[in-house]
Amino acid sequence: MSEKTVLLSEEEALSLSRKILLKKGFSDDFSRAISETVTAGQKDGCGSHGLYRILGCINTLASGGVDPNAEPYIEPSSGGIVKVNANGGFSQLAFSLGLPVLIEKTKENGIALLAINHCVHFSALWIEVEQITKRGLVAIVCNPTQAYVAPHGGSKPLLGTNPFAFGWPRPGKLPFVFDFATSAIARGDVELHEREGKQIPDGWGVDAQGQGCNDPQVVLEEGALLTFGEHKGTALSMMIELIAGPLIGDLMSYESSQHDDGKGALPYHGQVIIAIDPTFTAGNNVEMHLSRAETFFSLVEFQGARLPSKRRYESREKSEKYGIEVSENLYLELCSLLHD
Amino acid sequence: MSEKTVLLSEEEALSLSRKILLKKGFSDDFSRAISETVTAGQKDGCGSHGLYRILGCINTLASGGVDPNAEPYIEPSSGGIVKVNANGGFSQLAFSLGLPVLIEKTKENGIALLAINHCVHFSALWIEVEQITKRGLVAIVCNPTQAYVAPHGGSKPLLGTNPFAFGWPRPGKLPFVFDFATSAIARGDVELHEREGKQIPDGWGVDAQGQGCNDPQVVLEEGALLTFGEHKGTALSMMIELIAGPLIGDLMSYESSQHDDGKGALPYHGQVIIAIDPTFTAGNNVEMHLSRAETFFSLVEFQGARLPSKRRYESREKSEKYGIEVSENLYLELCSLLHD
Repeated sequence: MSEKTVLLSEEEALSLSRKILLKKGFSDDFSRAISETVTAGQKDGCGSHGLYRILGCINTLASGGVDPNAEPYIEPSSGGIVKVNANGGFSQLAFSLGLPVLIEKTKENGIALLAINHCVHFSALWIEVEQITKRGLVAIVCNPTQAYVAPHGGSKPLLGTNPFAFGWPRPGKLPFVFDFATSAIARGDVELHEREGKQIPDGWGVDAQGQGCNDPQVVLEEGALLTFGEHKGTALSMMIELIAGPLIGDLMSYESSQHDDGKGALPYHGQVIIAIDPTFTAGNNVEMHLSRAETFFSLVEFQGARLPSKRRYESREKSEKYGIEVSENLYLELCSLLHD
Repeated sequence: MSEKTVLLSEEEALSLSRKILLKKGFSDDFSRAISETVTAGQKDGCGSHGLYRILGCINTLASGGVDPNAEPYIEPSSGGIVKVNANGGFSQLAFSLGLPVLIEKTKENGIALLAINHCVHFSALWIEVEQITKRGLVAIVCNPTQAYVAPHGGSKPLLGTNPFAFGWPRPGKLPFVFDFATSAIARGDVELHEREGKQIPDGWGVDAQGQGCNDPQVVLEEGALLTFGEHKGTALSMMIELIAGPLIGDLMSYESSQHDDGKGALPYHGQVIIAIDPTFTAGNNVEMHLSRAETFFSLVEFQGARLPSKRRYESREKSEKYGIEVSENLYLELCSLLHD
């Protein structure tokens, strides 16, 4: 099923998003920052993190789930640690405030950690990862979300979809980046199956008794999603709950759900970003070691496997060449928001 | 099929291991350090990383794959980075040398990274993780191994079984620790199926064309193992290749295999250990945040899911109460090594 689309220039996408967000009550700074994030998502073909997210931002604002004028600030911290309090706003401004300090501390210490606290989050981590790899640094980023996922062997929503992302700088090329949810599947995909009256595949969810279940409604209403990779994926998801939760003094997914209290706002929690400077760790010949990584990437591709982000980078290239594709329905809905 | 076992006290297991290693030519320091590792493995019921490993150490020594008298040394580094050169020996002495510096740097900087280079490795990471959580710190540890695993969508051995481990300190309790291979299964399990003439389950391996394959011999000789969790597990395994390889100026799994050149020695490569001090990251009330993590663990167990390491800790408790169980065949084989 193909649907009608329109093509927007980057400027048009940015401007449309920004105007809607301003009109709906977001500050100048947030309107600009959010429009940059959703335009980057749309440009890379990530529908769920593209312009569609503007609707989520507006709903979250309407439900009182985000402060549209929040001013993030840097909290006292020492050594290789940076702490930014997003103060109840979306994470973008907090990230922008913390990033230069993270970069500086990483270039001083070889490794540093940025904790963003009390933010409302989109969970497309590659955008943040690329800001770090651009400086020649390696990045590891993760955050909890809200409780949708049962731990392996369990039956109740406790864990978030908890994205985990990694970035590796590639001189002269787009970075090696992956960014995946530790749930077997996005909650949105289960909802889509429900709307279309389709069964879901094995491994996506369980019923209230913890038995594998193919009925999307039962999984969503009585059971829970599962993590990817059985007990290993669950372990990774638990690590994310811990290091982007209590370790940085912020909420875990189930606490974030309690905080939301059924309002359906975008998740409110913290985020952990670790950066490492290869010039501190690789010894004397950093360039040679980076070029060894390039050989490794070639060997992956040579045997027919894909590097993560390949599809996203292809979309980006296409968007740069022809314009950014947006479904006509979404475009019309967004335009109508300017006039309602 | 149950087999006869003997029970050894911790002192007996340590002493037996140490005497064999000394007799076979390992230095005093290595004999002591390796005997501690394999005894800890046996005590925790990890057969493959227990006293059985002594045979692998001896084979590796006989093949020239390890220096039994290597003296590790600390390489120049700055900031939050510690670099220890294991100098071709087993990793234990390098880890012991680097650990106090890692702890000190973590307590100064909030986050620090220990890179161990040029070591021969056992890949039971929980032993190292527990040394760090014991100091109240959080630990992330990983290393490459040798090329046995194809990336998702590929068909050729390129990635290692690449273990990934995490530790979280639990005041007054054994720590939350997981330590898993990023391969779908250990190579040894595929070999076991081959010896027993059994098919292997779906998802473990592929043939030379990259098609799923249930014949263990074909997987081992012509194809490759798979990672756990399809493209997500592959992404994680690639991250380990990069951060415990080029990032620290050391070998990736396929390079480690080239280095081995068919000798069948234990893998030679590097290892990355990241430690984080919660007192730097959690804000003012660290104890409260650690106790929130305890509530999270209770919620996992309350719904019938298991915490990782539970089985290992149960074995440890049993070993402490009744003695360390060793198969009689292995025990006799080890004793015979003292008299051959």
